Amino acid sequence: MSVSVSATLAVNEALAERRHQGLPVLPLGFGEAGLPVHPAMRDALAAGGDRNAYGPVAGLASLRTAAAGYWDRRGLPTDPELVIAGPGSKPLLYSLLLSIGGDAAIAAPSWVSYAAQTHLAGHSVVFVPTAPAQGGAPQPDLLTDAVTRARMDGRDVRSVIVTTPDNPTGTVPSRGTIRRLADAARALDLVIISDEIYRDLVHEPGTVVHSPAEFAPERTVVTTGLSKNLALGGWRLGVTRLPDSDIGHRLRSDLLGVASEIWSTPATPIQQAATYAFGEPAEITDHIARSRRLHGLVARAVADRFVSAGALVAPPQAGFYLYPDFDGLKGSLAADHGVTTGPELCALLLDSYGMGTLPAAEFGEDERALRMRIATSLLYGETEAQRYSALAADDPLALPWIRAHLDRLDDVLDQLLSNDRVPCGEVG
Amino acid sequence: MSVSVSATLAVNEALAERRHQGLPVLPLGFGEAGLPVHPAMRDALAAGGDRNAYGPVAGLASLRTAAAGYWDRRGLPTDPELVIAGPGSKPLLYSLLLSIGGDAAIAAPSWVSYAAQTHLAGHSVVFVPTAPAQGGAPQPDLLTDAVTRARMDGRDVRSVIVTTPDNPTGTVPSRGTIRRLADAARALDLVIISDEIYRDLVHEPGTVVHSPAEFAPERTVVTTGLSKNLALGGWRLGVTRLPDSDIGHRLRSDLLGVASEIWSTPATPIQQAATYAFGEPAEITDHIARSRRLHGLVARAVADRFVSAGALVAPPQAGFYLYPDFDGLKGSLAADHGVTTGPELCALLLDSYGMGTLPAAEFGEDERALRMRIATSLLYGETEAQRYSALAADDPLALPWIRAHLDRLDDVLDQLLSNDRVPCGEVG
Repeated sequence: MSVSVSATLAVNEALAERRHQGLPVLPLGFGEAGLPVHPAMRDALAAGGDRNAYGPVAGLASLRTAAAGYWDRRGLPTDPELVIAGPGSKPLLYSLLLSIGGDAAIAAPSWVSYAAQTHLAGHSVVFVPTAPAQGGAPQPDLLTDAVTRARMDGRDVRSVIVTTPDNPTGTVPSRGTIRRLADAARALDLVIISDEIYRDLVHEPGTVVHSPAEFAPERTVVTTGLSKNLALGGWRLGVTRLPDSDIGHRLRSDLLGVASEIWSTPATPIQQAATYAFGEPAEITDHIARSRRLHGLVARAVADRFVSAGALVAPPQAGFYLYPDFDGLKGSLAADHGVTTGPELCALLLDSYGMGTLPAAEFGEDERALRMRIATSLLYGETEAQRYSALAADDPLALPWIRAHLDRLDDVLDQLLSNDRVPCGEVG
Repeated sequence: MSVSVSATLAVNEALAERRHQGLPVLPLGFGEAGLPVHPAMRDALAAGGDRNAYGPVAGLASLRTAAAGYWDRRGLPTDPELVIAGPGSKPLLYSLLLSIGGDAAIAAPSWVSYAAQTHLAGHSVVFVPTAPAQGGAPQPDLLTDAVTRARMDGRDVRSVIVTTPDNPTGTVPSRGTIRRLADAARALDLVIISDEIYRDLVHEPGTVVHSPAEFAPERTVVTTGLSKNLALGGWRLGVTRLPDSDIGHRLRSDLLGVASEIWSTPATPIQQAATYAFGEPAEITDHIARSRRLHGLVARAVADRFVSAGALVAPPQAGFYLYPDFDGLKGSLAADHGVTTGPELCALLLDSYGMGTLPAAEFGEDERALRMRIATSLLYGETEAQRYSALAADDPLALPWIRAHLDRLDDVLDQLLSNDRVPCGEVG
């Protein structure tokens, strides 16, 4: 159950050791947003410093109202009574899995913790592949097949998890995919858990994020938080939006029971700051817009380098991830390096070049999948000053430390692969 | 699994409704410390406002070192590597129960969440009575009998929970009780979870809190937090100290796996403030000393009123609770009010007099037990200003709002019970 931590930790420790030895590193393993705290959020936190009461298990009424407004503005009308806050969206997801019970269908690949949390809650997962550039959404037809088969085997599958925009692929499933997925979930009587924590980080304004809550409002639970859009992972604040239906009202009661026994309430000063953030004042939306632009520019630049080297990469559309596929290069990887699995490829990149990545196997895929998740957000700088500069820059790719990382990536891929190959381009 | 919340919530809501109607209330139901945030803690939190990284699952190294120093100064030498921080001691307790697995032996009466958490983790509890004035410690001989019997019935009992000082009784188990309990747990091969969150709130400097970790260091896990001694329940910060043994090292690995999937890490700005608190600078220890004095004076004054009314009360020694027993008055309660159970008695007090309490049944005792938990900490005032005055006062009992509460308590008990009764005094 601690696989994810171990893998991430092992990469972080190896990179720290190389830094210590003065060796070059390329930190592409860890999914932290890598940007500074907005000063207004610091002020909002400090203003909450006199709040020490336990407060309601569901979270402060002001926070729930602000979060409801956040969803209202995204076309998902929300009753604050059906919002529950938690110390991160991670504990909310765990408690949802525990409250819903039964096995969960999840995408392959998908974020490492869904499967780990399901196991911790005493259940199993059904992995369902995603279609190219439709990361985070189990393919609807395959979902129906897999759940039907699992039920014929006597398994009690009760939920399906969607991630949109997606981690690890950085893609955004289309309206059609989400709609068909919602229909399939309804036909199968599954609760849909839609993790939309990257929702505000789409790179292009034209990219619309569709939530299953638009198409199956009676059965879709949405989660989000401050960790990604405001780079506040360490502040631990998530919210969930329950459906206004029998399913939702039952789930609310169960979830509050679980929450009251596991965490009581998120830290109150943090809730006060989150209330401010979900109110979306201009300074916060401007900050997120600047962050989104930076994520897009760097993710695209990194993707281009993988494409040039001959990997297949779905163009990143949101967040700060991409998921290159080296399957087309497996011949030379086997011949030149004796590498035949994803974990071997990532280990080679780490040991020989100090390039930290996570193999597809960590995201629920087969070890033979020569894919890996690349997180691009730790390239923005190692100091607060560098990160502020990256956010402010018209052309962040020209900043010397970001430029150096990109050049280093070119070098590593050059050394890994022969140069005379024709790029096989993008899928999309 | 949500019994505890519902009971506390129901009491809180009933009191709010009476306040709204202008009816008198006596808030004795909710175990919140009822004191203001120390200004230095507010400053420490604000200073941590730029910390947004996820940080280590176990908690910041600085916090773990400070917590280790806290335990060192209490005669429990501690390796910071064996300290794990969580968002409250509640999630740490849940994760310990989940990591240890198996059924848990717990005291009757004991804090409502131990049983609820054990059930949530998929296991059952073995209730073991406590001896008079030894609250929180299952009676060692009865523990041995109960666990032996449960094992003969095929149950897999793996842990025993101790609370010292105790909630709900406000008592501190003696050295002899703790030592014999530790011996019994060793003989039974049980992990001891010692919840010591009230440790710094003993009323008299001469009252020594003994931890099972003194007598069974190889198998005792200690938990504490900031919620009670610094009245920071809403800040959600707990720490656990694992034993330096095979048991402890195994548990550390399992606990980190669980923590990484449920909460990742406590909010980092809160961790920074907690680092300051566990360093125990003079202004913090002075503040706690003043809080302790206030808790003792008010708890004792409230206990005296119950004793005068004819209830049996173990003299409160720590924290802000007492646990009066009305069994000696059961004849008149039945005759005058038709009350024969603890929940009926508490409902009568709430409905007829606006006095909020929690019946013994909420703490794992039989419904027929005419006992209740009284929390005295919400008598200090309804405003920050009143609470500061209560902390600062030489004679807080003379403050008009506290005096009014105590007079009201006298009236309620007078009206509940006939006046011509001889007090049956204290046990101790």
